[in-house]
Amino acid sequence: MKIGLVQMPIIRDKEENLKTAVEGIRKAAEQGAEIVALPEMFVSPFIIEYFPDFAEEKGGHIYQTLANAAKENGVTVVGGSMPERLGDKLYNSSFVFNPEGEEIANHHKVHLYDVDIEGGPVMRESDGFGFGNKVTTFEVNGHKFGLVICFDVRYPELFRILALKGVEAVFVPAAFNTVTGALHWELLFRMRAVDNQYFTIGIAPSYDPTHDYVAYGHSIVSSPWGKVLLDAGTEPCVSVIDLDLSEVAKIREQLPLLKLRRPAVYAAEMENL
Amino acid sequence: MKIGLVQMPIIRDKEENLKTAVEGIRKAAEQGAEIVALPEMFVSPFIIEYFPDFAEEKGGHIYQTLANAAKENGVTVVGGSMPERLGDKLYNSSFVFNPEGEEIANHHKVHLYDVDIEGGPVMRESDGFGFGNKVTTFEVNGHKFGLVICFDVRYPELFRILALKGVEAVFVPAAFNTVTGALHWELLFRMRAVDNQYFTIGIAPSYDPTHDYVAYGHSIVSSPWGKVLLDAGTEPCVSVIDLDLSEVAKIREQLPLLKLRRPAVYAAEMENL
Repeated sequence: MKIGLVQMPIIRDKEENLKTAVEGIRKAAEQGAEIVALPEMFVSPFIIEYFPDFAEEKGGHIYQTLANAAKENGVTVVGGSMPERLGDKLYNSSFVFNPEGEEIANHHKVHLYDVDIEGGPVMRESDGFGFGNKVTTFEVNGHKFGLVICFDVRYPELFRILALKGVEAVFVPAAFNTVTGALHWELLFRMRAVDNQYFTIGIAPSYDPTHDYVAYGHSIVSSPWGKVLLDAGTEPCVSVIDLDLSEVAKIREQLPLLKLRRPAVYAAEMENL
Repeated sequence: MKIGLVQMPIIRDKEENLKTAVEGIRKAAEQGAEIVALPEMFVSPFIIEYFPDFAEEKGGHIYQTLANAAKENGVTVVGGSMPERLGDKLYNSSFVFNPEGEEIANHHKVHLYDVDIEGGPVMRESDGFGFGNKVTTFEVNGHKFGLVICFDVRYPELFRILALKGVEAVFVPAAFNTVTGALHWELLFRMRAVDNQYFTIGIAPSYDPTHDYVAYGHSIVSSPWGKVLLDAGTEPCVSVIDLDLSEVAKIREQLPLLKLRRPAVYAAEMENL
């Protein structure tokens, strides 16, 4: 199955970002992609203070633009994420549209980035967003996929649940910074893939030191063996990669990690904490 | 805190292996190690058919030799692992002794290696051993440590439980083969450390292509940031490394991964599987 990753610059201009995203979806579709994915917060630089201005409700302009792009290009679109206004709160929210332009999944980021790391930007994401409370999957042509957003990738619990739900790949729209990116980006995608024996797909903004928020770039695909199949580097680019999803069943036959789990032991120990 | 890792050849001669282990403990103690750790099955090559011959009961010759080595050298000994005879079963079992020579922990391997990986040795460890059912910790000088055995390192669940129990480092006596070692050894130790923000310590037999079981070697220590602090290479050697355990609290302040977990979400999703 061919997957497209749109690694794009994200500037302080919603319309320009939407244009870049739609153009990326078109290019990936031209190269045969069946699913095309965008980065986290592809409409707005990752600055908490910007989000209220960029936020829209479900069904609004951003949402409709993505739905149309899916339909016009006949592809499934994993719409990175956007600041979604819902009731009196904002959410870091990702919508997925099928080739008919219909919404088939919606993930609200479960883990919010409240971090003050040495040398990196201070961030209290939960000041700007409400918490998601669900694990998200969707299906394309009989194959099941997982969807999480950025900081969610730090949590092995979420990825294990996705494995137990039977997904063959997990999409991670993300926007790591250059500090945590250099330290852990590749490691995380390889390890989640190896532990759970599926593909992991990380979609990042391009790197540009002049941007309001400086992202790490390096959109990535890891095989279930932990091999980096794609590292998109730092420049804006549209990558299309053909994944052999049958690898998932093959590795699990040779190295049956999921089958050899000891759930009763984990449950008993968790209860005694 | 200074930790000693004894990377040793393991041959088909129990007494010779015991001599090598005791000599390693002595050397590490001389270099100031407070805790010294041995590899998995340090008394016997990792061949299922050998284990009944090498097995002993708790309190037997192997056990007593380790207890004495701890006492004579005034160190805590993480006794790799041995085939322990218990009732009508064998267990892949690790004993820990304090500097008084008293047992302070005993781990039975929880995850048994029933694997047939392309290019690697076929193994059905559960044909030879019973399953352990507990997560194991012990304390040295007010610091808490975790203990698992080899294939246990494949399971993020176990390492998360150890983090929630408050350990600052996890010892993993192991004997990866050259196929899975080259693929995943370093990745696993770095990632468990990064996810759980503690040190991970892997102790391996040395590599020797003429051995009955050919181990990967590369005894390893990873920092909570995922930095490889020690890679012992392939030759027999005794390494002593000084770990600053205060790093654990420091990283958790900057990047509070454990605090930002969403246990209620995981529990609800696990129930709905």
